[in-house]
Amino acid sequence: MHFASDNWAGAHPKIAESLSKHADGFAAAYGTSDLDKAVAQTFNEIFERDVAVFFVGTGTAANSLAQATIAKPGGVTFAHREAHLIEDEGGAPGFLTGGARFQAIDGAVGLIHIDNLKGAIKGFAPGNVHAGQPMGVSITQSSEIGTLYELSEIAAISSLCRENGLPLHMDGARFANALVSLGCSPADMTWRQGVEILSFGGTKNGCWCAEALVFMDPAHAREMPFIRKRSAQLFSKSRFIAAQFEAYFADGLWLELAAHANAMAARLADHIEASKKLRLAWQPRANEVFAIMARETSTRLHEAGAVFYDWKPPHSERNLVAENETLVRLVTSFATTPEEIDRFGDLIA
Amino acid sequence: MHFASDNWAGAHPKIAESLSKHADGFAAAYGTSDLDKAVAQTFNEIFERDVAVFFVGTGTAANSLAQATIAKPGGVTFAHREAHLIEDEGGAPGFLTGGARFQAIDGAVGLIHIDNLKGAIKGFAPGNVHAGQPMGVSITQSSEIGTLYELSEIAAISSLCRENGLPLHMDGARFANALVSLGCSPADMTWRQGVEILSFGGTKNGCWCAEALVFMDPAHAREMPFIRKRSAQLFSKSRFIAAQFEAYFADGLWLELAAHANAMAARLADHIEASKKLRLAWQPRANEVFAIMARETSTRLHEAGAVFYDWKPPHSERNLVAENETLVRLVTSFATTPEEIDRFGDLIA
Amino acid sequence: MHFASDNWAGAHPKIAESLSKHADGFAAAYGTSDLDKAVAQTFNEIFERDVAVFFVGTGTAANSLAQATIAKPGGVTFAHREAHLIEDEGGAPGFLTGGARFQAIDGAVGLIHIDNLKGAIKGFAPGNVHAGQPMGVSITQSSEIGTLYELSEIAAISSLCRENGLPLHMDGARFANALVSLGCSPADMTWRQGVEILSFGGTKNGCWCAEALVFMDPAHAREMPFIRKRSAQLFSKSRFIAAQFEAYFADGLWLELAAHANAMAARLADHIEASKKLRLAWQPRANEVFAIMARETSTRLHEAGAVFYDWKPPHSERNLVAENETLVRLVTSFATTPEEIDRFGDLIA
Amino acid sequence: MHFASDNWAGAHPKIAESLSKHADGFAAAYGTSDLDKAVAQTFNEIFERDVAVFFVGTGTAANSLAQATIAKPGGVTFAHREAHLIEDEGGAPGFLTGGARFQAIDGAVGLIHIDNLKGAIKGFAPGNVHAGQPMGVSITQSSEIGTLYELSEIAAISSLCRENGLPLHMDGARFANALVSLGCSPADMTWRQGVEILSFGGTKNGCWCAEALVFMDPAHAREMPFIRKRSAQLFSKSRFIAAQFEAYFADGLWLELAAHANAMAARLADHIEASKKLRLAWQPRANEVFAIMARETSTRLHEAGAVFYDWKPPHSERNLVAENETLVRLVTSFATTPEEIDRFGDLIA
Repeated sequence: MHFASDNWAGAHPKIAESLSKHADGFAAAYGTSDLDKAVAQTFNEIFERDVAVFFVGTGTAANSLAQATIAKPGGVTFAHREAHLIEDEGGAPGFLTGGARFQAIDGAVGLIHIDNLKGAIKGFAPGNVHAGQPMGVSITQSSEIGTLYELSEIAAISSLCRENGLPLHMDGARFANALVSLGCSPADMTWRQGVEILSFGGTKNGCWCAEALVFMDPAHAREMPFIRKRSAQLFSKSRFIAAQFEAYFADGLWLELAAHANAMAARLADHIEASKKLRLAWQPRANEVFAIMARETSTRLHEAGAVFYDWKPPHSERNLVAENETLVRLVTSFATTPEEIDRFGDLIA
Repeated sequence: MHFASDNWAGAHPKIAESLSKHADGFAAAYGTSDLDKAVAQTFNEIFERDVAVFFVGTGTAANSLAQATIAKPGGVTFAHREAHLIEDEGGAPGFLTGGARFQAIDGAVGLIHIDNLKGAIKGFAPGNVHAGQPMGVSITQSSEIGTLYELSEIAAISSLCRENGLPLHMDGARFANALVSLGCSPADMTWRQGVEILSFGGTKNGCWCAEALVFMDPAHAREMPFIRKRSAQLFSKSRFIAAQFEAYFADGLWLELAAHANAMAARLADHIEASKKLRLAWQPRANEVFAIMARETSTRLHEAGAVFYDWKPPHSERNLVAENETLVRLVTSFATTPEEIDRFGDLIA
Repeated sequence: MHFASDNWAGAHPKIAESLSKHADGFAAAYGTSDLDKAVAQTFNEIFERDVAVFFVGTGTAANSLAQATIAKPGGVTFAHREAHLIEDEGGAPGFLTGGARFQAIDGAVGLIHIDNLKGAIKGFAPGNVHAGQPMGVSITQSSEIGTLYELSEIAAISSLCRENGLPLHMDGARFANALVSLGCSPADMTWRQGVEILSFGGTKNGCWCAEALVFMDPAHAREMPFIRKRSAQLFSKSRFIAAQFEAYFADGLWLELAAHANAMAARLADHIEASKKLRLAWQPRANEVFAIMARETSTRLHEAGAVFYDWKPPHSERNLVAENETLVRLVTSFATTPEEIDRFGDLIA
Repeated sequence: MHFASDNWAGAHPKIAESLSKHADGFAAAYGTSDLDKAVAQTFNEIFERDVAVFFVGTGTAANSLAQATIAKPGGVTFAHREAHLIEDEGGAPGFLTGGARFQAIDGAVGLIHIDNLKGAIKGFAPGNVHAGQPMGVSITQSSEIGTLYELSEIAAISSLCRENGLPLHMDGARFANALVSLGCSPADMTWRQGVEILSFGGTKNGCWCAEALVFMDPAHAREMPFIRKRSAQLFSKSRFIAAQFEAYFADGLWLELAAHANAMAARLADHIEASKKLRLAWQPRANEVFAIMARETSTRLHEAGAVFYDWKPPHSERNLVAENETLVRLVTSFATTPEEIDRFGDLIA
């Protein structure tokens, strides 16, 4: 019953196989091999336009370097209060942008509320050097707590961004999970709604280390080769990231894996809804389930072998959890089995 | 005839196999898995002392973060004029240290000459804030041009470092090649001669992405977990770097691969010494061979299918190359075959 | 009726006179002149201990460099939500620390509430690299909105800091105003309550450009000379900052000027309390008065020649101001006259 | 006999007077006062075009922020080997640009030799992320060692810059001294020869703290307000820097002071040329004289009350100084008197 995180899972067999398949021979280094190029072409096809793709090693790097490409002196990016950019990157976004700031925007269930964003942007009068200057907006899809922006919500945010000259970045560490949940295309979930820069995550969904920064308009990526290099994210044997993506995209593996993880989360949610000992904190829409339970229930579940984390309640939902209760996060992945889920279901029945 | 770089080679089959072997199951993320810990223990054994080991994704990261751990305001690290830190990291060492500087020290055949180092350190009067303050010394073993520091030379440099309170870093992107060439132990080539921080490279010697930063005294690594995270070098599925190192060290594979690469370089050097069309620029001691030839010879070799780079002559050796000549670099690796070498030998005979 | 800011005032005649007095002759540059040393000695006397003093050019520099001396990788300093460090330095604190973050702590009337600070610190589990690591606490005395920490409140915060190994910094842009209001000594308001680093401001209180960073324990300032130089805050003719401080401290001028500014603020507050058109937002304790009034009243006052700023209500006090009302800030200084105050009083009577 | 540095001098009486004159009254802060604007207009007149002017506190700031406005990721600026940017700013240029590098270019008597510059630029192949990318060129006029670029030399360098898309910055810490020596106009020495950004120094020539960054094309300064603020160089009572410049420019005071300093240097050079104990290291063209003498002569002069520094010989001139000799720097200023010069002349006669 491994629900600690989707990054506790390993690599999907087809990913591992692809790494082995490409292990021998010689190829140009630093992202210039034929395989690197072929995978870049696949990204074009997936996004239905010519995009600029840059492989990096970690999600932290993808998010931070996305911000570095839009950084301004005294710059401020707006993100949800619980966004990874703000809470979980150990300061990398500030460090790798050379000092940018990240301002927390509130909103229920992990999603920026557009009125709060509007208010925050308004707080920066043009030319007020003391306050600094807005430089971008970042949303997370699916969010840190397993919820989703509807396409129309993304469009509304990007429209506000355009009015204010702010590029819109999407942290897609769990991009595939969101995609299959909404049932739309990658283009629909990104540039058709105005998203300009995407952190495209493969690691949490069955790769071992495959993250990409995707610029919907390659013109915005002009400085990115130098930004990536100075940030130590240019891999000499970059083709092994490419090899992972090759298998990831082949025959729609990525969507299949994400659909599986989501289905496992839904199955888990069903068990929870049927239980009298737990309740769903909010409706899960991707591969993360948050449940509220008595502390002793949590303890008992841990003792019974379930692996998961207690979670700090999001600021907007802090009143959902009573004094003697705890909020827990349960993450499913490509590697989660129905049996695990049902075993957990039995425990809470 | 692939002599462009050792990072054009792929991954050794045993490395690929280890990745597959560890692909399934669940394990704690961010470097805390059992496998991560086991490999850290192997490092202790290899270095014959308790060291602190941190996996990172690239050699650029290893070198830059090594410098970040010793950084000081206004800090200056001394390195050979052609060191990667100075010439080839795209500014990462300066960026990831928050603005440290790297001062070029001259010395023949890619090696710091201790008198020049002594002079450079003397140039910084204590407390002279205008000049800045020395913060460290970095040497590359084997060097950028395939030469080696003798153990006694490392000891002499580290002795000068100690007198001046400067930590000594070794860029070991080709550590194994140097080790088997000198025929000494890892401990002998590092801390027994006073090296305190080591960039331990596995990528160029048969891994696909396995670099480690090794602190001989774990007390010097106190801030490193935070430095690594803020630099986006903490991998969630870190165990796959560990998996590479596990296979790398098992049964001395790493030394075997390096010995092979060195032997191929020696074989290549023999062919060159026997040739009348080329001459060795200097005696190779690891897996890089530098040769001087007429430009037209270089062109002809390229046409015949040899892959290699023309090389800018090192500053100290700039007079070796005549007007109509070119210097070329030929790199061998674990994947180089005697047949390739001999085919090249036939071409230059 | 100049109430826009205390930095709209000029320089006190005695400050200007001192600059002229020291204008001729030759003296060692970069802070090493006899005058620099004499003023450093005066700081020792004022603080009743041997402190380390560094002159810088702006309050932004003093605050930012204070943070730079305590910076850690992934570091987070806690400050009040409306602190200058967070809201008004244009990103300088993040930039000049190489990427530190500043976490907003709430508390009524511009003052950190210790329970909120305690909770925030607890949010950082030791070794949690994703969250980063606490590096310090900063308080502003007098606060951005003219209120004060009692000595016992400072002591309580510093006690919490010590428990958590966090240095306590005080932003004293209006140090003198706080001091004369509390009627205590500089030592009482700082190190006797556990403050370790002080931004000591002279500019707002009659100097034209005189800010100092004071380390209560000189051992904490070891890297400061290099930090100041690399931040471009080492003035060649530093003795002219010293000259300002010389006059500032002579015969208690600084306390006299602050007492005057505070008295003017109190006089202004009396007028407001007597008025039916305005009300005090909270009780002023230094040289800043905040009043709430109908928007049309504000407009009328501006038209009548009063110079002041509308102010964004502090987060904790955002409900004090009704829809059709505005909050305004009125700042007095050494140069404010009773006549100005009373003219304003007449307008609002 | 004060020849240590022109920044050992104080402030010219007219500068001090202007500070006093503007000391009272109220004025808008942060560079927006009427006086700030009037002085900006004077800069337009002096440069015969609409320039963008930003006051900063130190020469280090002017140089570093000039570089920050042209900074690129992995960026490299070329400057003379002994330029302040490289040797004397304590790392500020690297720090305040967020990690830019400064590559040393050789050239006799403190001046970049254009062939060396050409070669250095060529070393950066477009798109080679490992090497980084050129971002600018900086020249110092007058140079660190009192020599001058002819207008035609500046034009040649700027022409090379334009071919390579590189902005040309001039470090004018001693701008006025160069100007009066060449006898040309500010426009002639800057934008008419292609200089785009100028560090305009007033401090060394009679101000106490007045430095300005001048952008010949205001479009290049778009981000400068935010760069200045985040670097803590925006002064609240900025009008006191303006006040210094007002007096500095009034009735050509600045040119008069520089002409005096240069004349004193020429008078000193005459004494040296007439002496048998010293010789000029090279011909002085501004207000710095470098002389070579026996070490014991230097000692004797110090003992006789002459204040000056021994100087490390420039790299290109390192062979001018024999084993038992020393190179010394003698700087004159607005405050130097003919009597001092002649007293020194007597000593060496």
